[in-house]
Amino acid sequence: MQSSIRARLIVILTCLLLGSALLQGILLSAHIGSLEALADHWFTVGWSFLLVAGLSIWVVIWIAKDLTRPIEQMTQAAQKIVAGDLGQHVFINRQDELGVLAKSFNHLAETNQRRYQEITASKAQLETVIQNTVSGIFLLDAKGTVFLSNPTAGQILGFDPIADVPDHFSRLTADPKMSQALYDAILAGQPYQQTISITVPAQRVIELHVIPLTAGDRFVAVFYDISEASRLASIRADLVANVSHELKTPVTSIHGFAETLLSDNLVPDSTGRRFVEIIYRESWRLLRLVNDLLDLSYLELDPKAIEKRPVDLTEILHDVVE
Amino acid sequence: MQSSIRARLIVILTCLLLGSALLQGILLSAHIGSLEALADHWFTVGWSFLLVAGLSIWVVIWIAKDLTRPIEQMTQAAQKIVAGDLGQHVFINRQDELGVLAKSFNHLAETNQRRYQEITASKAQLETVIQNTVSGIFLLDAKGTVFLSNPTAGQILGFDPIADVPDHFSRLTADPKMSQALYDAILAGQPYQQTISITVPAQRVIELHVIPLTAGDRFVAVFYDISEASRLASIRADLVANVSHELKTPVTSIHGFAETLLSDNLVPDSTGRRFVEIIYRESWRLLRLVNDLLDLSYLELDPKAIEKRPVDLTEILHDVVE
Repeated sequence: MQSSIRARLIVILTCLLLGSALLQGILLSAHIGSLEALADHWFTVGWSFLLVAGLSIWVVIWIAKDLTRPIEQMTQAAQKIVAGDLGQHVFINRQDELGVLAKSFNHLAETNQRRYQEITASKAQLETVIQNTVSGIFLLDAKGTVFLSNPTAGQILGFDPIADVPDHFSRLTADPKMSQALYDAILAGQPYQQTISITVPAQRVIELHVIPLTAGDRFVAVFYDISEASRLASIRADLVANVSHELKTPVTSIHGFAETLLSDNLVPDSTGRRFVEIIYRESWRLLRLVNDLLDLSYLELDPKAIEKRPVDLTEILHDVVE
Repeated sequence: MQSSIRARLIVILTCLLLGSALLQGILLSAHIGSLEALADHWFTVGWSFLLVAGLSIWVVIWIAKDLTRPIEQMTQAAQKIVAGDLGQHVFINRQDELGVLAKSFNHLAETNQRRYQEITASKAQLETVIQNTVSGIFLLDAKGTVFLSNPTAGQILGFDPIADVPDHFSRLTADPKMSQALYDAILAGQPYQQTISITVPAQRVIELHVIPLTAGDRFVAVFYDISEASRLASIRADLVANVSHELKTPVTSIHGFAETLLSDNLVPDSTGRRFVEIIYRESWRLLRLVNDLLDLSYLELDPKAIEKRPVDLTEILHDVVE
């Protein structure tokens, strides 16, 4: 059972008064001469004791209230702060230890509130920056748990960035390539960069960067949609391929006819023949150029098609010099 | 002057004891019969009073100590927390109001510490994400004050991201184009996107996105180095231009010689003449193709060179149909 300051004070005071009365009685009786003589006064002594005891208890209750009221005030304020109401303040204007405690308590509450507000504002600022970044961002650990993601990430990968943030990277996207790239990045354990074409939720080309954090097993993944740049690059590549194809037919035709004109001796005039020879030579040059362009286009479409084999450098240099 | 609980208790108790002694004296004297008779006992009464008073003061000092010790303990703990030592805990095991207050105080200190640690960890996580993002990021207001920037921003723009973060965007970079773009973005007041070639601290192409925040006059600027992609795009554009130039000479030459062969009647044979006519026609086709390619290259180098003027669509359609 919980005792109170009041109960404790009353018990102690009652003991003190009883002791004091007993002592006075003993001393008086010793002085008067006999306990019998004192017994004659029991009524008086008893009455006076009861009166003093009553008055004392009243005074003690008053003292106790004076002490417990500020204590209870602070207890309530502390409980309210714990419950989340940080703006608590106790109004206790005293000059004693309780007054000092109340001042310290208020100072503590204010400091805590200020600290909390400052860091909350600072955190909100960082959050705003991440929320408004045009790059998709998320933070994940080696197990693939997603701790943080931003709206852009949701837009690019097709999840609801507010209501439905997946807790694992494999559920970030229905596109297997993105999952695979993240998996590879985590396994690599070092800065990782990859350009990925995703098809879900839409046809997009994204550039993914994954940075492992120095502390712990976490990774920051940042990616942006480079579909537009990639589309332009592919248009340019297609242009080269299409133009090469477009050029090849007339060039081949010119080359063929020039060859026939020469082989069938269809140009008797020596100047005319020289002209046709020039046409033949120039068309040959064009043909090689166009073929080179076509090779380049094929390689751009499939960079793996480059056939690597040992070459004789001396032979190539001889060819060049000749 | 600061009074203490002890002093207050002593004063009150002394008054109580004096009152009690006076009352007992008055009652006794009334009972014994005369004040003179009581005066005979003054030595006894005085002694007993002094003894009781001494004992009482000792008890009161003990009570006061018992009350003020936990109060001072909590005051000190509160002051330490204010000074920054959040892990404070008071060891007060009591069943009274002070015990309840101590429990609430500890609960408050723990809750505050936990809240602070949680939000600090959460803030640190956001900070880590921003620090490790491969995009340059900063947060600025309409006046250009920089509130936040990350290491990537420093790397791209050439300021020390830790020791020397500029406080104004105009000092973020010595490159005027970047400053101008940020200035334009702030003036625009809506999502802004621009590709900028900067030359300080190095030749770089960056893509800048500036998003105005809904709350207040702040802006999140995000930019990434697209130098590599831009270099590839410009290589491709150069390739088209170079190839076109390379093609133009032989094609013009073929076209010219074929024309001369025809106009000077250098091919008497009818089949031969037909062949040269084909060569002439095909080289003409090639020439137009190459000129189109060259036009395309010029436009890519300078998109503003497109000359816009009203055209007669009917005339163009007639040409196409013919």
